[in-house]
Amino acid sequence: MRVLGVDPGLTRCGLGVVDGTGGRQVACVAVGVVRSGIDLPVDRRLLVVATEVERWIARHRPDVVAIERVFSQHNVRTVMGTAQASGVVALVAAKAGLPVAFHTPSEVKAAVTGAGRADKAQVTTMVTRVLGLAEAPKPADAADALALAICHCWRAPMMARMAEAEKRASELAKVHKAKLAALQRERLAAARKR
Amino acid sequence: MRVLGVDPGLTRCGLGVVDGTGGRQVACVAVGVVRSGIDLPVDRRLLVVATEVERWIARHRPDVVAIERVFSQHNVRTVMGTAQASGVVALVAAKAGLPVAFHTPSEVKAAVTGAGRADKAQVTTMVTRVLGLAEAPKPADAADALALAICHCWRAPMMARMAEAEKRASELAKVHKAKLAALQRERLAAARKR
Repeated sequence: MRVLGVDPGLTRCGLGVVDGTGGRQVACVAVGVVRSGIDLPVDRRLLVVATEVERWIARHRPDVVAIERVFSQHNVRTVMGTAQASGVVALVAAKAGLPVAFHTPSEVKAAVTGAGRADKAQVTTMVTRVLGLAEAPKPADAADALALAICHCWRAPMMARMAEAEKRASELAKVHKAKLAALQRERLAAARKR
Repeated sequence: MRVLGVDPGLTRCGLGVVDGTGGRQVACVAVGVVRSGIDLPVDRRLLVVATEVERWIARHRPDVVAIERVFSQHNVRTVMGTAQASGVVALVAAKAGLPVAFHTPSEVKAAVTGAGRADKAQVTTMVTRVLGLAEAPKPADAADALALAICHCWRAPMMARMAEAEKRASELAKVHKAKLAALQRERLAAARKR
């Protein structure tokens, strides 16, 4: 499975492509960052990000796009730009017919370092080690994008199993409800006969 | 000037097209709402919104797209979806080569009703009156989109004048700084001669 990980942003948008074999083996295919000038209007900045993500999808042909889920605990203005960028990346993936998965920063940190509250340096160190890179990917946004892609490779089988289990549980619940309803009808019919 | 006003959202995205004559005269060209199912993944919902906005731009050929600026004081999850939708709408406009303007909810309310804290009902009433509509546009998101477009028609000339004034002021400041620097150099040269 080939994953394009995206750490969304307007000033710097991290992009990382990782191949996963299904086990814990992961390999780095490409890593980089898209920048857009703060002097440009927001819509043109979003266009810069979208165009580059389109290029990366065409060049690396990922099976899925993993995007960091944005939260609003930080600076409001920055977060809005980040959310807009994440929407644009999701749109580009949807247009390319690719599935999109969102992972929270703590899910990514927990998957890669084992601790949901790891700092940026720890994430970069683990990404460098896990992918067997000669040097740490820079800037941090690029390392984060790789971390997202690794996180998806490792979480995807579990997420698929959970979705399967939920589906089965809901089917069982449906059968159970139908049985209960039938029992109720039988009882009512028996009560009427008496 | 023809304006496409967009009240961004995933569940309901309001769209309204208004023609402005430059004065206070405005006419309604089209109004509607795009809905996307909450059972769809976010990326597919964004695709629904983007596709419909593309269609509206192709059909109505606006000169500019006015989008409501999203703030994060409300429900975090909803706001993120709204911000993503606003990013996608801005991207679609940029791809079509159209300028994009953002207006805050209070700018829109102030422009249309005269009060920045007007409620939804007041906005709808004023939009209906100003555009001379036989009945109030529904749902509220559609009325809000028209309000945004009207707001842009009325604010655009002022915004253009302000941008022009700012540009002139910054040019004057540059000239002034250059004069000060020249004066400083003259003084230093005179001091050295003494």
